[in-house]
Amino acid sequence: MNSVKKAEVQVIKVGGKIVEDPTALMHLLDQFKKVPGYKVLVHGGGRSATKIAAQMGVETKMVDGRRVTDESMLQVVTMVYGGLVNKSIVSKLQSVGVNAIGITGADMNLVQAHKRPVQEVDYGFVGDIDKVDVTVLSPLLLQGVVPVIAPLTHDGHGSMLNTNADTIAAEVAKALAADYQVQLVYCFELSGVMRDPEDAATVIPIINKESFEQLVTDEIVVGGMIPKIQNALQAVEAGVDKVRITKAGDLADPQKGTYVV
Amino acid sequence: MNSVKKAEVQVIKVGGKIVEDPTALMHLLDQFKKVPGYKVLVHGGGRSATKIAAQMGVETKMVDGRRVTDESMLQVVTMVYGGLVNKSIVSKLQSVGVNAIGITGADMNLVQAHKRPVQEVDYGFVGDIDKVDVTVLSPLLLQGVVPVIAPLTHDGHGSMLNTNADTIAAEVAKALAADYQVQLVYCFELSGVMRDPEDAATVIPIINKESFEQLVTDEIVVGGMIPKIQNALQAVEAGVDKVRITKAGDLADPQKGTYVV
Repeated sequence: MNSVKKAEVQVIKVGGKIVEDPTALMHLLDQFKKVPGYKVLVHGGGRSATKIAAQMGVETKMVDGRRVTDESMLQVVTMVYGGLVNKSIVSKLQSVGVNAIGITGADMNLVQAHKRPVQEVDYGFVGDIDKVDVTVLSPLLLQGVVPVIAPLTHDGHGSMLNTNADTIAAEVAKALAADYQVQLVYCFELSGVMRDPEDAATVIPIINKESFEQLVTDEIVVGGMIPKIQNALQAVEAGVDKVRITKAGDLADPQKGTYVV
Repeated sequence: MNSVKKAEVQVIKVGGKIVEDPTALMHLLDQFKKVPGYKVLVHGGGRSATKIAAQMGVETKMVDGRRVTDESMLQVVTMVYGGLVNKSIVSKLQSVGVNAIGITGADMNLVQAHKRPVQEVDYGFVGDIDKVDVTVLSPLLLQGVVPVIAPLTHDGHGSMLNTNADTIAAEVAKALAADYQVQLVYCFELSGVMRDPEDAATVIPIINKESFEQLVTDEIVVGGMIPKIQNALQAVEAGVDKVRITKAGDLADPQKGTYVV
């Protein structure tokens, strides 16, 4: 064991739903501001791309809840995620005194990916991540600059790629784990993983591999929460110190939410 | 005079016309790659915003050749300049081995501005620059990262602002002059300032304040070139070492173009 204590960094992922609601977004950014220490924000895109695509006459195609990104849609998500959403967050963070920089995976070659091979479905310009180079993030963090990452990567051959924000957050967190003690935080609508989804008092404070299996057997953890926690456990195995699943409004309170360790 | 030699940096501005033509853009980026030393790229937006605005049903209003930026148009230019154009350049630079980072004036609080006061014309969300903080650029340059700046600033109160790329290039160049020996380069369609616009052999290699006045008197420098050179002379007075006006295709050849000193 290395006995030198590493600096702490939080990689915080917020979904598209929060990002596209101006009131929810400002509330989140106020919470984000209060998070102490080094931090990185990763944001989803949400339905704003669908709305703008419709305005532009670009058809949105979804397969199994995932966006098919043809050339026109790649243009839309590059504009909306990398421009509109990202710069809206950055300018709002600047207004509350957080010195943010908005980037994509192409910037400083942070996240290099390849176009997902066509199997049963052709998802188009969707990127599967090859390499995350976080060496470029440390000088920014040391300067007090907060990276705000849009859900876009690039292929190294001149094309942007649409990439899931949860995946980018996890991969950036894992890559940072070489030099930092990393906490990966997923903000979502509920207070955490709950025994009774109707009752915030039933949040499960800590889940590990063993308790997760029991929770699945007991059908307390079901549906989309299963892969979310599997990914969290996988991040922990890859060196991330802990993963926290919490309500956006509780972001600045480390007592709240569910920790996956 | 300070006898310590400052490091050199080139601030290179390219217009929207080049940026929106894929072949011209790749040619420019190949030239840009060959420029030695520290460099910063500032790009215009061009007519791509007009095209996308039309697709979205947002009307483009121009007054005296300048875009009126209402709230819908601000959304469009933020998407197009900050997302589509900026990330297209960044991903293409990455593909030729230039480690670019695409930013706006909001990122790292690089360029703070205020909404232009309404006088005869209400230009809407157009930013007049208050402050350029280039201290954030040096650590990037030292790491070998090349900043690529979109023609957008912010007001410090959460709003992005549409801002002329020539002006951003000049203000960034002036601010960098405190720590660097700065060359500001304007790429445009012609080979430089020419005695005969039809004959590339008549490029005027050097213009200073005195010769400029003579050239205006002799009606060799006319029209839109007058304010361009006035701005260049003003940049030189503000500490920029020299301003070069050149054809994009000649960017990597320092022998070409007109130098304003």
